[in-house]
Amino acid sequence: MKKIEHIGIAVKNLETSNEIFEKLFGSPSYKTEEVESEGVKTSFFMCGPNKIELLEATKEDSPIAKFIEKKGEGIHHIAFDVDDIVKEIERLKNEGFIVLNETPKKGADNKLVAFLHPKSTNGVLIELCQEIAN
Amino acid sequence: MKKIEHIGIAVKNLETSNEIFEKLFGSPSYKTEEVESEGVKTSFFMCGPNKIELLEATKEDSPIAKFIEKKGEGIHHIAFDVDDIVKEIERLKNEGFIVLNETPKKGADNKLVAFLHPKSTNGVLIELCQEIAN
Repeated sequence: MKKIEHIGIAVKNLETSNEIFEKLFGSPSYKTEEVESEGVKTSFFMCGPNKIELLEATKEDSPIAKFIEKKGEGIHHIAFDVDDIVKEIERLKNEGFIVLNETPKKGADNKLVAFLHPKSTNGVLIELCQEIAN
Repeated sequence: MKKIEHIGIAVKNLETSNEIFEKLFGSPSYKTEEVESEGVKTSFFMCGPNKIELLEATKEDSPIAKFIEKKGEGIHHIAFDVDDIVKEIERLKNEGFIVLNETPKKGADNKLVAFLHPKSTNGVLIELCQEIAN
């Protein structure tokens, strides 16, 4: 794990939240992206070597909609940057973590991603992500 | 805001959680510290330029004990590294954020810290922190 790549924050309304985080960081979101397969619209803010990803649900049954229904707006996941996601999935499975995506899938921001189940990580939803080489 | 300084994770038992995060990162906690005024024991893990702080309550009425009672174990706050915490508090107050500590207080890990109320930040408890010069 090289660094915290980003923190994902579940929000009800991306536009409203973009304004809040623009004020917080003193600079606007640098990118907006829709990930249809996940039922989310996202926007990204840069903070030095790290990013903040805001997530708004685009479907009623998307994981973000369900999260907000259950827990309200707030921090949804931590994503760690890894060099080799396939190796890391293997290592963490062997350590007893529950890996939700044994084969990494395409996520936002040109990344291969895989999640660990919060049951095995102290209630924290953890994402591993690896930049896709161009 | 220079970077994510750390993410604070509320845990029931520091020893058990240290084992989980040691497996996750493949390296042990590098520091344990008790902050009596906050009623917490903490342990820190390094992840590149960022840290993970695990927090266990030492008193029944500590904010961490109350958080776990209400929400269970999980991510408690995000801390951002700032150069000048006094200036940053002033700036954020002027932007309409609710600052919980108008005068920064001494936190763990040799830092001056101040928190923003989650009401004003999309349900996210945000900590500002500045390293205390030695």
